[in-house]
Amino acid sequence: MRSNGRKAEDIRPTTIITNTNKFAEGSVTIEVGDTKVICTATVDEKVPPFMKGQGKGWITAEYSMLPRATQTRNQREAARGKLTGRTMEIQRLIGRSLRSVVDLHALGERTITLDCDVIQADGGTRTASITGSFVAMTMAIHKIAEQHKLAVFPITDFLAAVSVGVVQEEPVCDLNYEEDSQAKVDMNVIMTGSGKFVEVQGTGEESPFTRDELNQLLALGEQGVKQLVELQRSALGAVANKIDARVSKEA
Amino acid sequence: MRSNGRKAEDIRPTTIITNTNKFAEGSVTIEVGDTKVICTATVDEKVPPFMKGQGKGWITAEYSMLPRATQTRNQREAARGKLTGRTMEIQRLIGRSLRSVVDLHALGERTITLDCDVIQADGGTRTASITGSFVAMTMAIHKIAEQHKLAVFPITDFLAAVSVGVVQEEPVCDLNYEEDSQAKVDMNVIMTGSGKFVEVQGTGEESPFTRDELNQLLALGEQGVKQLVELQRSALGAVANKIDARVSKEA
Amino acid sequence: MRSNGRKAEDIRPTTIITNTNKFAEGSVTIEVGDTKVICTATVDEKVPPFMKGQGKGWITAEYSMLPRATQTRNQREAARGKLTGRTMEIQRLIGRSLRSVVDLHALGERTITLDCDVIQADGGTRTASITGSFVAMTMAIHKIAEQHKLAVFPITDFLAAVSVGVVQEEPVCDLNYEEDSQAKVDMNVIMTGSGKFVEVQGTGEESPFTRDELNQLLALGEQGVKQLVELQRSALGAVANKIDARVSKEA
Amino acid sequence: MRSNGRKAEDIRPTTIITNTNKFAEGSVTIEVGDTKVICTATVDEKVPPFMKGQGKGWITAEYSMLPRATQTRNQREAARGKLTGRTMEIQRLIGRSLRSVVDLHALGERTITLDCDVIQADGGTRTASITGSFVAMTMAIHKIAEQHKLAVFPITDFLAAVSVGVVQEEPVCDLNYEEDSQAKVDMNVIMTGSGKFVEVQGTGEESPFTRDELNQLLALGEQGVKQLVELQRSALGAVANKIDARVSKEA
Amino acid sequence: MRSNGRKAEDIRPTTIITNTNKFAEGSVTIEVGDTKVICTATVDEKVPPFMKGQGKGWITAEYSMLPRATQTRNQREAARGKLTGRTMEIQRLIGRSLRSVVDLHALGERTITLDCDVIQADGGTRTASITGSFVAMTMAIHKIAEQHKLAVFPITDFLAAVSVGVVQEEPVCDLNYEEDSQAKVDMNVIMTGSGKFVEVQGTGEESPFTRDELNQLLALGEQGVKQLVELQRSALGAVANKIDARVSKEA
Amino acid sequence: MRSNGRKAEDIRPTTIITNTNKFAEGSVTIEVGDTKVICTATVDEKVPPFMKGQGKGWITAEYSMLPRATQTRNQREAARGKLTGRTMEIQRLIGRSLRSVVDLHALGERTITLDCDVIQADGGTRTASITGSFVAMTMAIHKIAEQHKLAVFPITDFLAAVSVGVVQEEPVCDLNYEEDSQAKVDMNVIMTGSGKFVEVQGTGEESPFTRDELNQLLALGEQGVKQLVELQRSALGAVANKIDARVSKEA
Repeated sequence: MRSNGRKAEDIRPTTIITNTNKFAEGSVTIEVGDTKVICTATVDEKVPPFMKGQGKGWITAEYSMLPRATQTRNQREAARGKLTGRTMEIQRLIGRSLRSVVDLHALGERTITLDCDVIQADGGTRTASITGSFVAMTMAIHKIAEQHKLAVFPITDFLAAVSVGVVQEEPVCDLNYEEDSQAKVDMNVIMTGSGKFVEVQGTGEESPFTRDELNQLLALGEQGVKQLVELQRSALGAVANKIDARVSKEA
Repeated sequence: MRSNGRKAEDIRPTTIITNTNKFAEGSVTIEVGDTKVICTATVDEKVPPFMKGQGKGWITAEYSMLPRATQTRNQREAARGKLTGRTMEIQRLIGRSLRSVVDLHALGERTITLDCDVIQADGGTRTASITGSFVAMTMAIHKIAEQHKLAVFPITDFLAAVSVGVVQEEPVCDLNYEEDSQAKVDMNVIMTGSGKFVEVQGTGEESPFTRDELNQLLALGEQGVKQLVELQRSALGAVANKIDARVSKEA
Repeated sequence: MRSNGRKAEDIRPTTIITNTNKFAEGSVTIEVGDTKVICTATVDEKVPPFMKGQGKGWITAEYSMLPRATQTRNQREAARGKLTGRTMEIQRLIGRSLRSVVDLHALGERTITLDCDVIQADGGTRTASITGSFVAMTMAIHKIAEQHKLAVFPITDFLAAVSVGVVQEEPVCDLNYEEDSQAKVDMNVIMTGSGKFVEVQGTGEESPFTRDELNQLLALGEQGVKQLVELQRSALGAVANKIDARVSKEA
Repeated sequence: MRSNGRKAEDIRPTTIITNTNKFAEGSVTIEVGDTKVICTATVDEKVPPFMKGQGKGWITAEYSMLPRATQTRNQREAARGKLTGRTMEIQRLIGRSLRSVVDLHALGERTITLDCDVIQADGGTRTASITGSFVAMTMAIHKIAEQHKLAVFPITDFLAAVSVGVVQEEPVCDLNYEEDSQAKVDMNVIMTGSGKFVEVQGTGEESPFTRDELNQLLALGEQGVKQLVELQRSALGAVANKIDARVSKEA
Repeated sequence: MRSNGRKAEDIRPTTIITNTNKFAEGSVTIEVGDTKVICTATVDEKVPPFMKGQGKGWITAEYSMLPRATQTRNQREAARGKLTGRTMEIQRLIGRSLRSVVDLHALGERTITLDCDVIQADGGTRTASITGSFVAMTMAIHKIAEQHKLAVFPITDFLAAVSVGVVQEEPVCDLNYEEDSQAKVDMNVIMTGSGKFVEVQGTGEESPFTRDELNQLLALGEQGVKQLVELQRSALGAVANKIDARVSKEA
Repeated sequence: MRSNGRKAEDIRPTTIITNTNKFAEGSVTIEVGDTKVICTATVDEKVPPFMKGQGKGWITAEYSMLPRATQTRNQREAARGKLTGRTMEIQRLIGRSLRSVVDLHALGERTITLDCDVIQADGGTRTASITGSFVAMTMAIHKIAEQHKLAVFPITDFLAAVSVGVVQEEPVCDLNYEEDSQAKVDMNVIMTGSGKFVEVQGTGEESPFTRDELNQLLALGEQGVKQLVELQRSALGAVANKIDARVSKEA
């Protein structure tokens, strides 16, 4: 039995509250256990230089933790004068994952920037950022669709993420910080609502892992993502139907 | 009559919620109208190099806005690779103001770092940061006092801040963003609970101001700060008595 | 009695020499006691990007100290790779103050950059920079006016600055370094030739100050600025009349 | 049939030449098709600050491409003044992977730094860097073992890496640049000589992938790594036996 | 007698291999004793902003050493975040020297960037970079000439460089690292194929030198450069004739 | 005949005023024609880390130009966030040159930092910096000698520098900016009072130069330096004798 009385496959209590920012085109505050992230989506009616003239949009993300999101205070990256490798890795991952479920041609020459700011961190901040950002992004794209009467709704599927890992020889889902720091294998699973993989990143720095362990972790991830997609669906209300319609059309 | 039906001397609806962060030694979320700032206090049992060996503590502050705290998105300072002059000015001001009401000898060789992160910005973020930080700092120092049985409680007085300005030829208190952008004179008033000035910063970039206008602005600031100190007192509960005791002793 | 036999209200011996640089459109070397600053004004026939197309000009300033301007050598900011918060604060202050007495529409789409380089520092370098820069800027604008036959002379009033403070319980004017380091309250007063305030920045880090002390300091600042404006008038010679003419017209 | 007449499971012609640097404690030049990387291992008889006093060693890596390693010239990161996110991600990956097969306690308080400099790039530079670095690192550790008579040989298994992906709907092994730029799924597989996974990083930015595709890619990676381990074994000669001995002991 | 049995005037065994990079418009690997440098030339069909609209081309160079090119590992400049003064000095020298033998008008509005990457360093890396870059640049310009039918071949003369110095009181040519570190005078001589000087940089930090010593060093440099030009001529094959033709025409 | 009626071998009117800074251990303002440089020497009673424990001192230099030292304004290096290659080259040259005439063992474990700040620039700023810095450094070392009763006076010879070049086919001495920008060959000659060379840096970017031209330039440099050494001698007064005494002893 895990701390908080969770079973191996249980995700933590998770809430996704929308419209938590007065200004952004889309915003959510997502809480996964004691991890809390604010995700805002900003729409810009142009694309970065390297995308110009292709008739396509762009989705990008930035990630940051407040200095005291964690047990001991971390120095601000703005004060250090540069981003850490960890931050760069995470924001590249968030952007790449979100782009996998957006039809960039249908979006048109616009950029959506997702800002993921971790207010409190207790493990799984990057996966919470992806799950939350998907909702914020969908709200912002919905707003564009309403204003610009886009021919096609650009989001092609739901997208959510969860961490899984091997803790004390047992594969478990949605690790909190304490579990994460004991895990010998650590994997992030990012999947679509239709059950396809978008990213799989597994690391066995402490100890290499077998194919069998990998299979168990993927299965745990799969069912964890399913639960998160249901929460996204509730948070989005009627807007979720637009995604479902697009998914049906693709199939 | 101002927007929101406020009179010239009215401050905005203000709430100070304590313990909004699981890890920090002191924390508050302060909301002043639509301005929302998270202030956390971190205690470090040593001082920066330039303070070593003096038997005194140190109080310092950092300030930042989330990129979408404002109507249009601002680039992150971590991405720019350096702090703006505005940020530096604000964090120097917060630290300096707080130090004015702390007996650094009584604190001992410890550093308290206040992190002020603006979640949403509608004018007065630096004054809200000071007002909120004072409470977070007091909570952290209270925690030190309890653990280390300090001989004297190190906080010598309450401290709060408010902005005042001349908007459409009328001096008003606690400007929101809309008022601030029309103001011809803009002043930050930082005062103690006993009614002394700690900082007065008045700027007439759009139009120089007379001694008479200055006097009216100072009076508005004075009564605004008084109201904020009462809110701090409520937020601090019994801990407020320690400050009062110290103020009485000084007098 | 203060060091150098000054009375509380006395400013230090001050000289403003013009045309000390062969290349700049305007230049002065200002000496205030042992503080010595070179101020040059450079005219650029365009404005920064954020000002484009508004039909208005821009005034900006940069400030620096030679490494050995002070008793002990300071590291160069160019070697550190970034400006200190203090430098940023000062150069923002100089630029903002000068803009308050320039009719930017009358100036047209031009930028004037004031470079204030402190050759020797004995207190009051930021106020000396403002007082000297005003003269250098006026000379440069006079040169533009002569070449471009501007419809209106763009400078609307004189501008000078002085520091005041409470030293050994007594309010005094124009502090040197020794006095400044003992001051419990420190204030910079920036005023127009007509006696209006442009900036008032008072700090009581060592000890909060009363309204009464504030009033005395403002009075000392007011009379100090008056003396400095007279020195500016002499330095500018006939060009001073253009400012007077504009002031009369405004009144 | 793939370009160069390769079948889906074929790796490119690969050579690993050792001792290509006169000074380094270990060095190889690895060529995988037209991709060419110099890997050097540097031994430092101390550990970084965060590892001090734990009685353990540290393995770290740096990665860089010569500006004209690629078809068009890339700006040097030294000239940009900072590392790209891609570089940081890669060097973190190389270091983490190598550490997974080193018994850091047996290594003692030493750091080995692997420098991977890409002389020419035609796809798979990060996997070639890992495969080559393993050999360079082993040579350096062998040298330490000879000089310091380490109680146990610190390398616990072979380690190699290969990229796999789905190109034109077909899963293939060891993609060159042309294939990589057409791939809809791209995965790096890093495994030990005993067939365990150390890292699995699969990305379906262009198109999400099914569990079935994932399984096929893992199988391709597995057999690719096996071939590379044989090449490492040849390059290492007698030193390879030390690894085999340690593997047998562990089993 | 010097190490390796060289006489005072002997250069080290030197080879210049062309086309060592698959992508660059010109490339060589030059080995001078144990010093080994890869030089690539990249052609860009535009010039930097400061050269625009002059109808002239531009030649520029960048220089870097792999971290373990030397006996002990050097930190990467990309990791430090800035170039050292030494690197800047060297790349300015390489660019300036090459420009002295190129008719920039005949080249047209194009930029050629020479990248000199030191794979192994045993003294004389900057002179080897110049000697090698000249060949790589010539190959690239030859390629332009073939494609664009330039009216005149833009290279006006050969160019090579050698270091000379006073070691153990004796002037010697082409110092290796060991000699260089004992030299009391150190000079780089850069000359054209016609025997004119392009750069002479002599330094007597350890001990000032006489006019007589200077004369001997120049003579040694002169004959060293002559030998290197012959090696360049062989490496270039038929392309060398184009340079000879241009030299004859000038004379 | 040159501008200002100078003959080929004439240096410009040159003055060296000592003690122009109230705080520095040594200071001069040197004017060479319209070029004006402030040189200050700062003594620090320790050496940089790489020199520790060798019982030797260190001499280093920094160089900077005020933004409006030149005809058009240059951006500050502090604002750019890094030094230009030109600045680095110059400050390395100044430091290296000065060290060549200082007996670092006799100086003891102390650092002398020379700050050369160019107030106005009309050609020859680096040579003026060297000539002026030598005097400032000598004054600072004299002060150390007086306080610490050094066994031997550490300065072994005078040191001065001048630029020479070929302008309109004629070799001339001490070029001003106008001449410098027309010169086809440009050379800096740095020599001791005894007539030995410390640095010779000749550049023929515009046009390679012959051995004959080189000889003429060296001769011009030699007689220019002689005149400058006489001016240094006057500026130093009685302190010059200490250098002469040391020179005699060496001879």
